[in-house]
Amino acid sequence: MLYMNTRSFVFVSRRTILRWSRSRLDSECTLELDASSYPSQKSVCIRKRGFNTNQRQPNSRTTRTFATMSCDKLFNGNKDRFNGVTVDSTQEPCDTSTFPDILKGSLDKWRDTGIRGVWFKVALADSTWVPVLAQNGFRFHHAQPSYVMMVCWLPSNEVCNIPQYASTMVGVGAIVMNERRQILVVSEKYKLFPHWKLPGGYVEPGEEIVNAAEREVLEETSVRAKFKQMVCFRHVHNFTFGCSDMYFIVALTPEPGQEVLKKCDREIDAVEWMTVEEYLNHPHVHSTNRFFVKKFLEYEASGISLSYFEDTHPILKKPYLVYSLDLGPHTPAEKQNNIPSQSNKL
Amino acid sequence: MLYMNTRSFVFVSRRTILRWSRSRLDSECTLELDASSYPSQKSVCIRKRGFNTNQRQPNSRTTRTFATMSCDKLFNGNKDRFNGVTVDSTQEPCDTSTFPDILKGSLDKWRDTGIRGVWFKVALADSTWVPVLAQNGFRFHHAQPSYVMMVCWLPSNEVCNIPQYASTMVGVGAIVMNERRQILVVSEKYKLFPHWKLPGGYVEPGEEIVNAAEREVLEETSVRAKFKQMVCFRHVHNFTFGCSDMYFIVALTPEPGQEVLKKCDREIDAVEWMTVEEYLNHPHVHSTNRFFVKKFLEYEASGISLSYFEDTHPILKKPYLVYSLDLGPHTPAEKQNNIPSQSNKL
Repeated sequence: MLYMNTRSFVFVSRRTILRWSRSRLDSECTLELDASSYPSQKSVCIRKRGFNTNQRQPNSRTTRTFATMSCDKLFNGNKDRFNGVTVDSTQEPCDTSTFPDILKGSLDKWRDTGIRGVWFKVALADSTWVPVLAQNGFRFHHAQPSYVMMVCWLPSNEVCNIPQYASTMVGVGAIVMNERRQILVVSEKYKLFPHWKLPGGYVEPGEEIVNAAEREVLEETSVRAKFKQMVCFRHVHNFTFGCSDMYFIVALTPEPGQEVLKKCDREIDAVEWMTVEEYLNHPHVHSTNRFFVKKFLEYEASGISLSYFEDTHPILKKPYLVYSLDLGPHTPAEKQNNIPSQSNKL
Repeated sequence: MLYMNTRSFVFVSRRTILRWSRSRLDSECTLELDASSYPSQKSVCIRKRGFNTNQRQPNSRTTRTFATMSCDKLFNGNKDRFNGVTVDSTQEPCDTSTFPDILKGSLDKWRDTGIRGVWFKVALADSTWVPVLAQNGFRFHHAQPSYVMMVCWLPSNEVCNIPQYASTMVGVGAIVMNERRQILVVSEKYKLFPHWKLPGGYVEPGEEIVNAAEREVLEETSVRAKFKQMVCFRHVHNFTFGCSDMYFIVALTPEPGQEVLKKCDREIDAVEWMTVEEYLNHPHVHSTNRFFVKKFLEYEASGISLSYFEDTHPILKKPYLVYSLDLGPHTPAEKQNNIPSQSNKL
């Protein structure tokens, strides 16, 4: 099969594609592909038949070898529903020496077939691809420890609509209050100043906020405690790594017999049960943390809380949590508004 | 100055450092550095004095040239408070040919001076550095369109405690209800199925959720509307780019005279004011969106809402928003709990 477009000839044989730039052929000439040596020798002679440019003898039917091209395959990639394609370097390995040619051929093919976004997921071990991709118009999109994702938007007549990668980090702090109305507080090992904090830390990728709160409290203080309610959250920008940061405050109830404290030596310098009154008046407590604890006491007094339920996305079939106010007996809203009665479970 | 450690000799002259592996010298020999040609020639001869290994004549005092090393400077980088160092390729340019030697010398220096995390911020134009860094134990940490950040944890006796980069994307949907109790709904251009959605989209890096809601409504429908309250949020994992996703629902009040709708042609197929009753019973409305609107109506009826205030971090002096319940007259919590009276403004 000889595949042609405005820029190049592409000869496809079995799983192999040869690309040849149209601009490098005279219009009077005929392209001949001698694939007799393929695939054993991994190369194909391309001959031009027509003018012998040295002798100026038209129609001399001289055939001379014009070039020998390597004939490695082009990248396939995985197509997505946005008409994009993703190549994973671990799925389609390629030598550094042949990568530039195969990339160029693949880009030509994708341009001609209307592909929009081209993604290369380059494993750390294949990082010699990175400078070649950069030279071919790719930019970085995101990275994980073991790979970097690069992207190139092909359409020249359409604005790139690829969303930016995540830029928000999520952390959690826990208000753990026992039956004696003491709350669990920690002092961190690596601190800039003395400070009694709420135990907590970063939510791990894929982890629920409530589970992260329970895990961090257990890790830092050895106290097992269960989710009671969400209290509030703080949103700040240009934080760690220049990211935005959401810090959720969650109230937990300790399980019975969890009074003995054992701190995490790696992170924590001291851990204590402290009375609410002492905490709210302690000179080494931030005003923000004081606010969080006061808010929690307000919620307790009102009987209103911010909680969550589990559900599944109706189309994508992914499980998720929805956090909202549980107004309890305070709001007969459906009756007041004549809304058809439906369970909150969607 | 001759600087020594267990692995190498490092000769420091002005801003230039020569590194020489101890393992490549015989213990009987003496290292001589002839820096007479430096800095004009950018290279220094290193001579070994001692045994002439060919002639086996001990103490012959033969001096022969052992090697000629290039003597480019090492990287300085910027130190951080965690005893890490960050090199920015745009701040300390380096040729591809000399990068491997300078990197190795710099890593030796940093190991010997107790540096923990070494970061390289590599601009797209300098991406030939990437494979060299990968070969020297660096892994990817994160990337933005114009750079990739690579990191190497040097201490062998301490667990790496570098936090992962952001993995949460934040979006917003808006419930905009006018005085006739109609809500603003849109149908997207690129949809998998017919669906009346709430207008909205991704929160931009550094943007506040409430501002994103107002911006997206204006962009998609041409309606100017102002924040009224937060309703709830959905948290789902393994979503776009494998990230977690938080989708906040915010209620907005349209400004007077904002009844005329003009859709964003690039993204939106149709936009309408639809009565609440029709929306809640429409077959092309997700159960989740129905829940969001019902929740909003509950909040309206109860007089309780989830809102925010602005403040500044007491230590880092960064502005932030805190989102919490505004219990209004429902909760005289401070009096009930005998908490010292303090303003909620921290």
